[in-house]
Amino acid sequence: MKLMEEKILNEGKVLPGGILKVGSFLNQQIDTAFLKEMAEEIKRLYQDSEVNKILTVESSGIAIAAACGMEMNVPMVFAKKHVTSNVDGEVYKTKVHSFTHNNYYDMVVSRDYLGPQDRVLIVDDFLANGNALRGLVEIVEQGEATLVGAAIAIEKSFQDGGDRLRSQGVRIESLAKIESMSDEGIIFKD
Amino acid sequence: MKLMEEKILNEGKVLPGGILKVGSFLNQQIDTAFLKEMAEEIKRLYQDSEVNKILTVESSGIAIAAACGMEMNVPMVFAKKHVTSNVDGEVYKTKVHSFTHNNYYDMVVSRDYLGPQDRVLIVDDFLANGNALRGLVEIVEQGEATLVGAAIAIEKSFQDGGDRLRSQGVRIESLAKIESMSDEGIIFKD
Repeated sequence: MKLMEEKILNEGKVLPGGILKVGSFLNQQIDTAFLKEMAEEIKRLYQDSEVNKILTVESSGIAIAAACGMEMNVPMVFAKKHVTSNVDGEVYKTKVHSFTHNNYYDMVVSRDYLGPQDRVLIVDDFLANGNALRGLVEIVEQGEATLVGAAIAIEKSFQDGGDRLRSQGVRIESLAKIESMSDEGIIFKD
Repeated sequence: MKLMEEKILNEGKVLPGGILKVGSFLNQQIDTAFLKEMAEEIKRLYQDSEVNKILTVESSGIAIAAACGMEMNVPMVFAKKHVTSNVDGEVYKTKVHSFTHNNYYDMVVSRDYLGPQDRVLIVDDFLANGNALRGLVEIVEQGEATLVGAAIAIEKSFQDGGDRLRSQGVRIESLAKIESMSDEGIIFKD
């Protein structure tokens, strides 16, 4: 998606430690007109897949997932990162390692909101080492739902999370794929 | 908003400890068609207020805030609940007590995304004791932005957070106000 690459080049900031800061439009402040364009593009990519549920994980995936749900007219579910008092009853659960925070968390979805009748599109803002995405795939499997694929705003292709999941047969569509990035610039794949 | 009251009556569940579970449509699974209707109603309520920024706090407020941002065609900013590696530079920050989790957290917004030029509408899913909303009001004040008001999906009017803030001059519009709730039913105010 050309517009995503332009936004990253114009507004993104490469920080020490391999962090790409896109807080001005994607994950702290959100450019809502651009959000709608992302959702339209994701709808186009998966228009023949009969998606009937969007799945993401809190919290930076929620805005894109909600926009996709509105655009595709299907419900959206977000996994929580801890068991909280608001999740009662039986849940799907998997343990995920966060490189950003250097800890483990439980990714949790109530059984009420995912099941064998669902054709699930996973949506998230970033894909790098793939831990969060693998956790979401695991949740879909626990729910015996059908995984249609994943739609990612920005993939760091220089990390292997995306390619490992693709080699396992998961369809992944990323709106921008970063091949390399440094103080000197950002280079996109393809 | 009649439709909100109907959703709460049809799908809400009162849990022990004064918790209203609305996970089926508002804060774990999200009914995205309903989300759009909420955003349209909030836009209508604040149509003459020249709002140019939506502010919420992660994570359950993000979907509604994003929908409002798209509907009103203004950017949305969400406060983070901890200082993370993705927030660099100077920030606005305030300490908030969470009754749900019985702990304190830092509510944080980068100075880059809020300032004196902003006319801010705060959006959130719940208002009960008002701690989160007071934190967001404090962030707006730190940013020397103009607070237009707040839009809340569900207010628990039997707790005093909303009325205390109203008495301080904050405009608060709640799509549903719950006067009382128990195993035996939910009664709305007005």
